[in-house]
Amino acid sequence: MTEYEDLDEWSPQGPVTELTDAHARALLERHGFGRLAVSVNGQPQIFPVDYHFDGTAIVFRSAPGEKLRDLALNPVVAFEVDDRTADGAWSVVVDGRADILTEAAEVQHAEGLPLPTWIPVAEYTFVRIVPTSIRGRRFQRWMVHGSPQR
Amino acid sequence: MTEYEDLDEWSPQGPVTELTDAHARALLERHGFGRLAVSVNGQPQIFPVDYHFDGTAIVFRSAPGEKLRDLALNPVVAFEVDDRTADGAWSVVVDGRADILTEAAEVQHAEGLPLPTWIPVAEYTFVRIVPTSIRGRRFQRWMVHGSPQR
Repeated sequence: MTEYEDLDEWSPQGPVTELTDAHARALLERHGFGRLAVSVNGQPQIFPVDYHFDGTAIVFRSAPGEKLRDLALNPVVAFEVDDRTADGAWSVVVDGRADILTEAAEVQHAEGLPLPTWIPVAEYTFVRIVPTSIRGRRFQRWMVHGSPQR
Repeated sequence: MTEYEDLDEWSPQGPVTELTDAHARALLERHGFGRLAVSVNGQPQIFPVDYHFDGTAIVFRSAPGEKLRDLALNPVVAFEVDDRTADGAWSVVVDGRADILTEAAEVQHAEGLPLPTWIPVAEYTFVRIVPTSIRGRRFQRWMVHGSPQR
C-alpha cells in the first residue's frame, strides 16, 4: 500500500485523487457539455446542457420549460462535467447559484460566447452559474493482473 | 418546418425527440457509467458511478461517505446516463428511490453483477434504484451550412 499513501480516499472501483483547483477549472474550460442538477421539493433532476466556462462563470442556454421553472423555484444547483479516460474517469462538480440573465449588456455578452450555433427557431434564455465551490476528482480503475478493469 | 412537425420540442441547440421506453431502457442496459443526483435540504449534488441495470433496477457500489449520508437523509434520487453522438447527444434520466441492500441474499446477488472488478481494500455497500420513471431524449444539433455544429 506504500505507493498509494498519498491518495485521499478509495472508491469501490479503486483509488480516488482530488484534483487541484487549477486542474479542475482547466477541465471545465476545455469541455462544453455537462449536467445541471436542480432540486425542487426534495426531488432532484438532471439536465444535460451545452455550456461555456470562461474561468468565472458557467453560461448555458435554456428553452422555456421544466428546467427554467425548477430554477425559479430553487436556484441552488450543482453542475457536473466528466469523462472516461484510459484508466478510469474524472469528474468536476460545481456548486453554485443559477441566475437568468436579464440585463441587455449581459445578454449581449452571452450571445458572443462560443456556444454551439444554431438557427434560433425557439425562444431561449441565458442562465449563468457563479460557482461557490469547484471540486475535481480522478477515479482510477484498480489494476488486476496488470491491466485496468473495464 | 414541415419535416420537423413530429418533433416534441426544441432545445436552444436544435430539435429534441423523446425516445421510446424500450429504447431508453436499452441505452441504460448497454452503458455502465452514469450520474446520481441527490438532494439534501434543497442542495443538489451529483456523483459519477459505475452501475449495472438489469432491466428492473440500477445497482451500484458506494464507499462510506457523503453519498451514503445524503441517501440516508433523502432517498429520492435522479440518475442520468448520456453520450455524445455524431450529430448531437442522447440522455436517459431515471427517477426513483435509492435503497441500501442489507439482506444477505440481495447482497450475494449484487456481488455477482458485472460491475467493474477491483481489489476490495475499502468497505462498500450496494445501492439499488428501482425506477419510478425512465425518460430518454435525443438532442440533435441543428444543421447550419449543411454540417452539424460542434
